[in-house]
Amino acid sequence: MTDPDRLPAFLDTLDAELRARGEWGRVADYIPELAGVDPAQFAISVVRADGSVTGAGQCDTRFSIQSISKIFALACVLNRIGDSLWSRVGREPSGDRFDSILLLEQEQGRPRNPFINAGALVTTDELLAGRPPREALSEIIGFVRAAAEEDDIHIDKAVAASEAATGYRNAALVNYLKSFDNLRNAPERVLGTYVHQCAIEMTTRQLALAGRCIAGLPGAPMLMTEAKRRRIAALMMTCGHYDGSGDFAFRTGLPGKSGVGGGILIAVPGRASVAIWSPGLNAWGNSQAGTEAAERLARFTGWSVFG
Amino acid sequence: MTDPDRLPAFLDTLDAELRARGEWGRVADYIPELAGVDPAQFAISVVRADGSVTGAGQCDTRFSIQSISKIFALACVLNRIGDSLWSRVGREPSGDRFDSILLLEQEQGRPRNPFINAGALVTTDELLAGRPPREALSEIIGFVRAAAEEDDIHIDKAVAASEAATGYRNAALVNYLKSFDNLRNAPERVLGTYVHQCAIEMTTRQLALAGRCIAGLPGAPMLMTEAKRRRIAALMMTCGHYDGSGDFAFRTGLPGKSGVGGGILIAVPGRASVAIWSPGLNAWGNSQAGTEAAERLARFTGWSVFG
Amino acid sequence: MTDPDRLPAFLDTLDAELRARGEWGRVADYIPELAGVDPAQFAISVVRADGSVTGAGQCDTRFSIQSISKIFALACVLNRIGDSLWSRVGREPSGDRFDSILLLEQEQGRPRNPFINAGALVTTDELLAGRPPREALSEIIGFVRAAAEEDDIHIDKAVAASEAATGYRNAALVNYLKSFDNLRNAPERVLGTYVHQCAIEMTTRQLALAGRCIAGLPGAPMLMTEAKRRRIAALMMTCGHYDGSGDFAFRTGLPGKSGVGGGILIAVPGRASVAIWSPGLNAWGNSQAGTEAAERLARFTGWSVFG
Amino acid sequence: MTDPDRLPAFLDTLDAELRARGEWGRVADYIPELAGVDPAQFAISVVRADGSVTGAGQCDTRFSIQSISKIFALACVLNRIGDSLWSRVGREPSGDRFDSILLLEQEQGRPRNPFINAGALVTTDELLAGRPPREALSEIIGFVRAAAEEDDIHIDKAVAASEAATGYRNAALVNYLKSFDNLRNAPERVLGTYVHQCAIEMTTRQLALAGRCIAGLPGAPMLMTEAKRRRIAALMMTCGHYDGSGDFAFRTGLPGKSGVGGGILIAVPGRASVAIWSPGLNAWGNSQAGTEAAERLARFTGWSVFG
Repeated sequence: MTDPDRLPAFLDTLDAELRARGEWGRVADYIPELAGVDPAQFAISVVRADGSVTGAGQCDTRFSIQSISKIFALACVLNRIGDSLWSRVGREPSGDRFDSILLLEQEQGRPRNPFINAGALVTTDELLAGRPPREALSEIIGFVRAAAEEDDIHIDKAVAASEAATGYRNAALVNYLKSFDNLRNAPERVLGTYVHQCAIEMTTRQLALAGRCIAGLPGAPMLMTEAKRRRIAALMMTCGHYDGSGDFAFRTGLPGKSGVGGGILIAVPGRASVAIWSPGLNAWGNSQAGTEAAERLARFTGWSVFG
Repeated sequence: MTDPDRLPAFLDTLDAELRARGEWGRVADYIPELAGVDPAQFAISVVRADGSVTGAGQCDTRFSIQSISKIFALACVLNRIGDSLWSRVGREPSGDRFDSILLLEQEQGRPRNPFINAGALVTTDELLAGRPPREALSEIIGFVRAAAEEDDIHIDKAVAASEAATGYRNAALVNYLKSFDNLRNAPERVLGTYVHQCAIEMTTRQLALAGRCIAGLPGAPMLMTEAKRRRIAALMMTCGHYDGSGDFAFRTGLPGKSGVGGGILIAVPGRASVAIWSPGLNAWGNSQAGTEAAERLARFTGWSVFG
Repeated sequence: MTDPDRLPAFLDTLDAELRARGEWGRVADYIPELAGVDPAQFAISVVRADGSVTGAGQCDTRFSIQSISKIFALACVLNRIGDSLWSRVGREPSGDRFDSILLLEQEQGRPRNPFINAGALVTTDELLAGRPPREALSEIIGFVRAAAEEDDIHIDKAVAASEAATGYRNAALVNYLKSFDNLRNAPERVLGTYVHQCAIEMTTRQLALAGRCIAGLPGAPMLMTEAKRRRIAALMMTCGHYDGSGDFAFRTGLPGKSGVGGGILIAVPGRASVAIWSPGLNAWGNSQAGTEAAERLARFTGWSVFG
Repeated sequence: MTDPDRLPAFLDTLDAELRARGEWGRVADYIPELAGVDPAQFAISVVRADGSVTGAGQCDTRFSIQSISKIFALACVLNRIGDSLWSRVGREPSGDRFDSILLLEQEQGRPRNPFINAGALVTTDELLAGRPPREALSEIIGFVRAAAEEDDIHIDKAVAASEAATGYRNAALVNYLKSFDNLRNAPERVLGTYVHQCAIEMTTRQLALAGRCIAGLPGAPMLMTEAKRRRIAALMMTCGHYDGSGDFAFRTGLPGKSGVGGGILIAVPGRASVAIWSPGLNAWGNSQAGTEAAERLARFTGWSVFG
């Protein structure tokens, strides 16, 4: 990108074109509280290395970050217990759906990575650390607020309750982990904490600010070591979009993490933190317009980590 | 890395320490001609953006590049037919062994990516393009020579013959692809071409030179568009080390491609092209000392693409 | 078997020899209440077409029939709703462990057959039929008592409670079924009913009597049609011993159903009903000494259904 | 069946009704020479214990017995080497398609049973016993002729050649077995023998006569021990119809073996040997009208082994 001043205009055009095209995908329907969300929504926020914040679309609309919370939970747990997490969860792409239980049987209860649901449940189990769920949730919310340098970030309890009431597949996963002795806490306690963690609500502006620490932007709050930051980014690159991770890396050349609420957080190392939101999903469960926007942004800016 | 002049000394120390430690892994035994190779060997070559070539160990010993050839075959085929390749092969990590046939059944004969054997056989099928194998092999050898700007690069026919005679698993894969109509040429013709392509012999110095075009180094021969180059690097990052790809990305933060001959080619975008060789393999079939060297080099230089 | 009068002596010898050999296998350890059972126990009871009851070993010791209850639950449900059950569960051997969840993912929540845990949970879901668990359990206990013509058959509540408290894998299965909409009742209600059904306690004498209706012995209580009886026997033959079903059929030529409590119920069509118990299990989770006894009995009597 | 004299009339009605209904399924298309066969054909032959031979439809039309040959090859090999076969192949239903390669990877090259293609290839490998294919084929043809007491039984070389030319999936299986060292002979030699064995042509009358030795009919040629006969019948019951084996047992209560040529051989122990042919297949690759006929015959005669 030769001229950084052209970014705001590009984002406006991107917003306008995606809305004009109107190919939004389908909203996730397995969480009733989210099933009613209008898919025809879009927002993108970009924080650059100079600290400037640019955006287009509904940048101040809050959405459920869902699986993007797995990044923050992982950071908290790595800060807390370090590499011992890796004895309980792997670091490889799974090649399966985000909620797959198949590999868990074949691999004796050790999830492939912390960004599929099974692995995230193990991470949340470590986050609990014998504490009441309230304390674990305080830690992760505290982390996110510190990262974004904003206090107005909360958990949407209606979404958490809705997911808890109907999240049978996650209930299956957490019980299955327990059956392999890869869970320290009671299954329902881990599940309850997990659905609250997933129900954190943020705007793309807030999320892009929170992502600065993963992108390693100058001036971002120091919340983890450089080594941890790089490793989390590597996991986002190989595992951040479930069984569509390879495709996202191929299209954008950037590490990103999606959530079924339609959000995507992208770290452009040293250059930018990008948050995109559009609630309609593609076949892999990743935001359809969001993926399209990420690809166009990468092409426009030349921000691929592959040079 | 503050001082680039310290690299040669670092490489010498690395070479000495790995040899002193003597943890070499096991040489691949399924290709008889390679089974007799002494595992206690090591070489590393680094070509930097300024064109300088540094190295340590047996940098002028030729080894069988094996699956690293999949990068060059992919580049040739993308240049030849473009994105239509992706209708026949995916771009996702497989989560399985390099020679797995399992997903091929579940996914109706469409290999997950061009860097596992099944996908590479499809790529070679496209490389043939109805031509005699000799011509297809001339194209790929020509590509490698042009990339390295060296003519003294050849196919080791004894290795090719050895792999052809005992490569029953690849014979299974190629017949299986044919049964799903995802092969244009006769199975034995594709297999014959494939084992010759894999049997290209190079030194780490030659391989590092050939890798400049993937790393996008200034002054590298222009053999593909920037977009293709980035996409190949993305595939190396997510799929280049089979079911150990996530781990390699986690450890090094760099796109690499391994071969069962013990070689690893690493692209450091815009900065360097690195070739490492040590024939003993780890549990995933990737060079054990080579992986260790890559991780130490990444830590020393700070070359992670994640900043 | 030329001389039926030799059966009692044969059973005594069998009992003595199995005890002398002392190869008992390992007691199931996933239900704490059963983990403490002494494996060195054995009982066999045979009811013949003439109504005679023969036995050897601890024929009056009660044991937990566990999965053998799946036969009786299936009979109740087929009597209640007929073939409509088969829209929710298949009739094929699974080829996997009794508690496998793998196929459930691949086959969209429709269990392979009613004799693996997933399928039995669907059967119990149908047995509930919107009634309180107590009523469903009354129906199955009533069926078993009627079949055995004995009233002194009960549920061991300590075993049920023990399994409920630690049966995480079944909890995973039942939630997984619910996630595919293949469960009408709440997961915990189905699971609670299921563990009570499995905790029915019987002696081999009682179980052999109860099995007369599956063997179609003259004078057995008429509890289902002949067509249903034959079909249940066919399912026992192909699916009654989980991923050891083929081996059991190969060794004995008889339809049987095992339980992790160490029981086996065998139907010898028109000729006999046989119950065996020995709590140590083999690698497939079937009674080790029980399987051996079944094979020897089949050889001695020539009772194979294959003539 | 109270009156055996009613059988001929029943078979005529059955033939007429199936033809009137005209639901034939689809002819197997992966063997070109068989793809052109008219699906609207039907034949059934029944040999009873008294030696009487009854039939209806095209009882004198020859068809390709295909996988039914696996029974005869298994009998030859068990006669030749006994139980040592079971170290190389299992006795369990696979739960997968007849030509699945999936389990072979998961179970390290040991096929689940001798009636799926992978297992039959191992059986044929044992049948070869270091001899030229011609001699192995002579043995199996000799066995079939002796069983049927007819010499006019031959191999259709055009079918064998057609299958050899296009049988890529079997080529994959045989190479895969070799890669696991579970093949003594060269892959192409085993495959060549296998396709010839499958290409044996018989009429239903001949096949029903040949099946007497499996049914254990009085006066049948003594070609194997009683123990072997029963075990083969047990394998037919649990594994004879691939992933439709459970369903066939459920519907008929009888051990049977199907072939993709549309044939089914059914052993009614001590009572009858039944051969059915109709080339259109159902979803599992078993004869559609043939399965229907088998179910009706079982209901009419009450011949279920389950009494």
